[in-house]
Amino acid sequence: MKGFAARMEGSQEYYFSKKLREVNRLIQEGKPVLNLGIGSPDLSPASEVIEALKNAASNERIHGYQSYQGLPELRAEMASYYSKNFNVTLDPESEILPLAGSKEGIMHISMAFLNPGDEVLIPDPGYPTYGSVTQLLGGICSPYYLDLNQSGRPNLEDLESKGLDRVKLMWINYPHMPTGAQGNQAIFKELLAFAKRHDIVLVHDNPYAHILNPQPQSILSLPEAKSHAMELNSLSKTYNIPGWRIGMLCGRKDWVDAVIRVKSNQDSGMFYGLQKGAIEALKLGPDWFDRLNEIYTKRRTLIWKLAELMDLSVQKDQAGLFVWGKVASDQNAEELVDKLLYEDQIFITPGKIFGPSGESYVRISLCQPEYKIQEAIQRIKKKSSK
Amino acid sequence: MKGFAARMEGSQEYYFSKKLREVNRLIQEGKPVLNLGIGSPDLSPASEVIEALKNAASNERIHGYQSYQGLPELRAEMASYYSKNFNVTLDPESEILPLAGSKEGIMHISMAFLNPGDEVLIPDPGYPTYGSVTQLLGGICSPYYLDLNQSGRPNLEDLESKGLDRVKLMWINYPHMPTGAQGNQAIFKELLAFAKRHDIVLVHDNPYAHILNPQPQSILSLPEAKSHAMELNSLSKTYNIPGWRIGMLCGRKDWVDAVIRVKSNQDSGMFYGLQKGAIEALKLGPDWFDRLNEIYTKRRTLIWKLAELMDLSVQKDQAGLFVWGKVASDQNAEELVDKLLYEDQIFITPGKIFGPSGESYVRISLCQPEYKIQEAIQRIKKKSSK
Repeated sequence: MKGFAARMEGSQEYYFSKKLREVNRLIQEGKPVLNLGIGSPDLSPASEVIEALKNAASNERIHGYQSYQGLPELRAEMASYYSKNFNVTLDPESEILPLAGSKEGIMHISMAFLNPGDEVLIPDPGYPTYGSVTQLLGGICSPYYLDLNQSGRPNLEDLESKGLDRVKLMWINYPHMPTGAQGNQAIFKELLAFAKRHDIVLVHDNPYAHILNPQPQSILSLPEAKSHAMELNSLSKTYNIPGWRIGMLCGRKDWVDAVIRVKSNQDSGMFYGLQKGAIEALKLGPDWFDRLNEIYTKRRTLIWKLAELMDLSVQKDQAGLFVWGKVASDQNAEELVDKLLYEDQIFITPGKIFGPSGESYVRISLCQPEYKIQEAIQRIKKKSSK
Repeated sequence: MKGFAARMEGSQEYYFSKKLREVNRLIQEGKPVLNLGIGSPDLSPASEVIEALKNAASNERIHGYQSYQGLPELRAEMASYYSKNFNVTLDPESEILPLAGSKEGIMHISMAFLNPGDEVLIPDPGYPTYGSVTQLLGGICSPYYLDLNQSGRPNLEDLESKGLDRVKLMWINYPHMPTGAQGNQAIFKELLAFAKRHDIVLVHDNPYAHILNPQPQSILSLPEAKSHAMELNSLSKTYNIPGWRIGMLCGRKDWVDAVIRVKSNQDSGMFYGLQKGAIEALKLGPDWFDRLNEIYTKRRTLIWKLAELMDLSVQKDQAGLFVWGKVASDQNAEELVDKLLYEDQIFITPGKIFGPSGESYVRISLCQPEYKIQEAIQRIKKKSSK
């Protein structure tokens, strides 16, 4: 045959798509695998969110195609969420686009801006999708590094010394996955000035804003940020509905319009019932986040204990849904991950899937109840006492 | 700024994404618009389908990320649907990929196969997404024509006389939208031989299989079809759940794997509750289709009456969810559409959005209840009697 597209050569199936098949196979074989790998919230959505979905679904008239821009009420509630939580004013008519998860937004934004050969600044370590989408579109990934002693400040001086003429896009993400670096307003200010100086479209990916993060923040809260920055957000982690696929893009009208142009040619609007549920979720107040974080705080204390048993070094100021730990100097992170999976049936994520700088790290998820983390601790204790 | 991607230059927002905003604006202004434009089934899904969604949603544990390949039960039921309805055997483990609507499959398949400059054979008229996706990826659209007096047979001889070395993909679609051409096994056989001869990946898009179609058929029912053909299918029209976004790709393992590679890097699995509902839908038997087609048959008779009042020529052997009619020789289709919308508040679709060959045609949807089609008939009668 004439062959697949050239873009397929370097492309691989998403790590978790493949790895979770293996984990599920082990579970089907009867292995008691503890999955501390993926960041899929195990906690329940609020009951009013589920009720809103069910009530909507009961209506026989709402199962048709939906608008590519989502329900006006959904966009209004998204605007209100930005106003309440980040003090950012967005026009729900033109500056917000609901997405089927923020992940799809990465492809749509990249399609709107990237020509083959264009460079894209990507955090190393970072969410693998920034790089894989860039590669699928023939763009060139330029990694940048984060200083974990400075809340994850990127090495902007190094980047400037290399020349940035071909750089079109820069992905940033605070709280940063996988390192948990919190970022801060000073870093945002620097980044925005950097983007303006080099005419780069800065996209802040903000799905962990409310998870163990003392200071939820949006880059759009800076004055005139919209001229060079957009923001992706997601309801997955904030409201425990990752399977619903609800995200949003916030930014200036002409950029949002370009993304609609790409998106409307390849998918359709989201199911009405899920949109109605999302509206209820966005209405939840600070109590919701407090309860969530109370649970994650307790879990994290246990994960820190687990990390200690594994000889990991962990910074304690990490935000987000994971603990990021460096393996001991005499250990190999990948070997540790494999040993844990095959000998102890504990699945954690090797840091190198997030980029070369993640090589000697592992990522442990907070998405399991305390008793399961305790079980993991017991398994490791038992073994080391043998 | 450094500018949008070159692909954005020719790209436009999907026609209905834009046009329906205008239609909704008219409705908000109090205009009693009758929407005979879009093919979004207005009929209800089966009650067991809705119940399955609601029951699943009630379970607090199912709101997390889902597998990129869908639930094994869903794939099994899709395989069973193909076996029952088309006598096609598919391996649910490797030859079926659930999709968030078949529309997204068009992008994923195109990304897996197309390099910039590759040619793609596209029906003219045809579903606009084949062309817009090709264009977004830098491919070249080569239109082909359908002989409506031969069940929509493509002009394969013309195509062969032009040379097909750069052609990678060919989109076919029977029952064909918008013309309603039914296709048949002889055409499928010719197409398959054509694809083999020129090493072309043939993709059959089959969402209208069960709508007013005397002979539902899959190209995969031909012997050895999988070597060169894949098929997209959708639950939208068949089970009245277009808003749910449930489709599927069927084909050989290595091609399905390539599509998974593309897809898993840009989205995530579908909501568990919608998958559970889809499983119930796929279990529905021939009675379901009979009831559906009884309703559409009555509506079509009325639409034919409406078409006559508009002086359209309509072939009576059309399958699918629309009536495709040619305007009288002294009329301009676009002007007719605009006059109907602005003067009579009846929205139908101009044929030219489906390609240059649709220039003197209009498309009328069967997705409105009889009393609304009657209302449209009355409006036109009243006017012509003035």
